[in-house]
Parts: sequence; C-alpha cells; structure tokens
Amino acid sequence: MKNTQVINFHIKGDERGSLVAIEQLKDIPFEIKRVYYIWGTEKEFLRGKHAHTELEQILICVSGSCKIRLDNGKEKQIVELKDKNQGLFIGQMIWREMFDFSDNCVLVVLASEYYDEKEYIRDYNEFLETIRTGINDSI
Amino acid sequence: MKNTQVINFHIKGDERGSLVAIEQLKDIPFEIKRVYYIWGTEKEFLRGKHAHTELEQILICVSGSCKIRLDNGKEKQIVELKDKNQGLFIGQMIWREMFDFSDNCVLVVLASEYYDEKEYIRDYNEFLETIRTGINDSI
Repeated sequence: MKNTQVINFHIKGDERGSLVAIEQLKDIPFEIKRVYYIWGTEKEFLRGKHAHTELEQILICVSGSCKIRLDNGKEKQIVELKDKNQGLFIGQMIWREMFDFSDNCVLVVLASEYYDEKEYIRDYNEFLETIRTGINDSI
Repeated sequence: MKNTQVINFHIKGDERGSLVAIEQLKDIPFEIKRVYYIWGTEKEFLRGKHAHTELEQILICVSGSCKIRLDNGKEKQIVELKDKNQGLFIGQMIWREMFDFSDNCVLVVLASEYYDEKEYIRDYNEFLETIRTGINDSI
C-alpha cells in the first residue's frame, strides 16, 4: 500500500547474539524525534484507531507479535509483525489499528515528530472526508 | 556515578496496556540519531567492553533483564535493568560491560550519534590512560 512499507532490517548476528541498528535518514526516511513502546496489551484489545496528518513512524515488534490493519480510505491491508528485524513504515494519512497482541508483545515505535494531538485524526469519518477532499494536496 | 544516570520514565497505563514515550532533548539529554537493539545473547556472554569518546546512550531492557557494569576508571558499579520503564544513561568515557542476559532479554539502545568506530575505545588500558591524561579536558 502506498505510503506504507515493510522494511527488513539487516541483522548483525554472531556469537554475542543478534543486533539490529537503525540510523535516521539512512535506514529510515526521517529523523527520530521520539521513541515509544507499548506492552501488556490484551490480545483482544484494539489500539491505534487514528491517522496522522504529519507523523511518520516505524513499528517494530521486538518481542512477540501483533497485527496492524492499514487503511488508506480506499483499501485495507493487514500486516503481521513477528520478526524482530521487521519494521513497518506508516506515512501520513493512513488509518491504523493494532490488534492480536501476543502475551509477550513489545511494540517499539520510532516517530518523526514530537507528540502533537493536533495532527491526530481520531474520527474515521473525518479521516475519509480528509482523504476525499485533500487527495490532490497531501496524499 | 557521574556521567551515568538511571531514569525512570513515566508509564502511561490504562486498559489498553502500558506505554512509555521518550522525546529527544526533553526526556533524555540528546538527539536520537540511531536506535539499536540486541537479543539472543547467551547468559554467560559479556558484551560491550568499550567506552565512547563522543557517544551518549540510553539503555532500556524492554523485555527480560540484564546487568551493566559501569566503570569510570576509578570506581565500578553494577546496574540491573529489569523494569521496562527504566533507562540507563551512559555518557562519554564510561567503560561498560553487559552481562547476565535473561533468555528473553531485548535491550534497546537510543544513541546520540551515528555509528563511528573512531570514537570507540576498545582497549581497557588505553581507556585508563585516556582518563588519566584527559581528566581535565573531556571528562
């Protein structure tokens, strides 16, 4: 789906274990201003349910697994994150829902901006309307 | 120990689970240029064994636990990372060794610089000598 991408980061593995390194503007297309991580989410709980007008993110399941439903207003797609070296890039104006969290799931997110509630779209109809009216501008 | 600090990040917890957010230059004292993470390290293996002349880092065990031996050339200290919201800041010229990794340990590191082998000190005697001779400059 346009404006989303699964990135398989290189694993440096040796007798010391495995390591993935992600450098801003090299391995991912933005500067990392914020890092957050989520754990202890019930399997049946649905997180996310919003889109961003500005923020770009990389989602990585560094422990366990979860699924991400991506929705650009026209098509939907589900991505399962279960490999530690797999990052999911989500760009602007993508509605996302995270679900099916495993017990040990730790989801790490690298974000291109500081937290700013103003650039969240939390109403699905507003999201669809923004897509419809802004399609020649920001998408 | 000077130039090291344990930071207890705020946990935003609700029915959706737990979340820790870390913003550069706000929750930590540097810009995040690189993020790396380590897993699958044998319990008895010793990682690290170096110091940095430039790099500053925050270490977080987002799964499992491990221990970090910190050494400024004069004193040593062991920090156990086992709480997901606990970050260990390690500044410049601190020799560090990571050990006692739990099976499920995932250690996430936020780093202030791109990878640059030139600013690593990998020889312990050289580290001590740099501390001794440079103590009025960079330390």
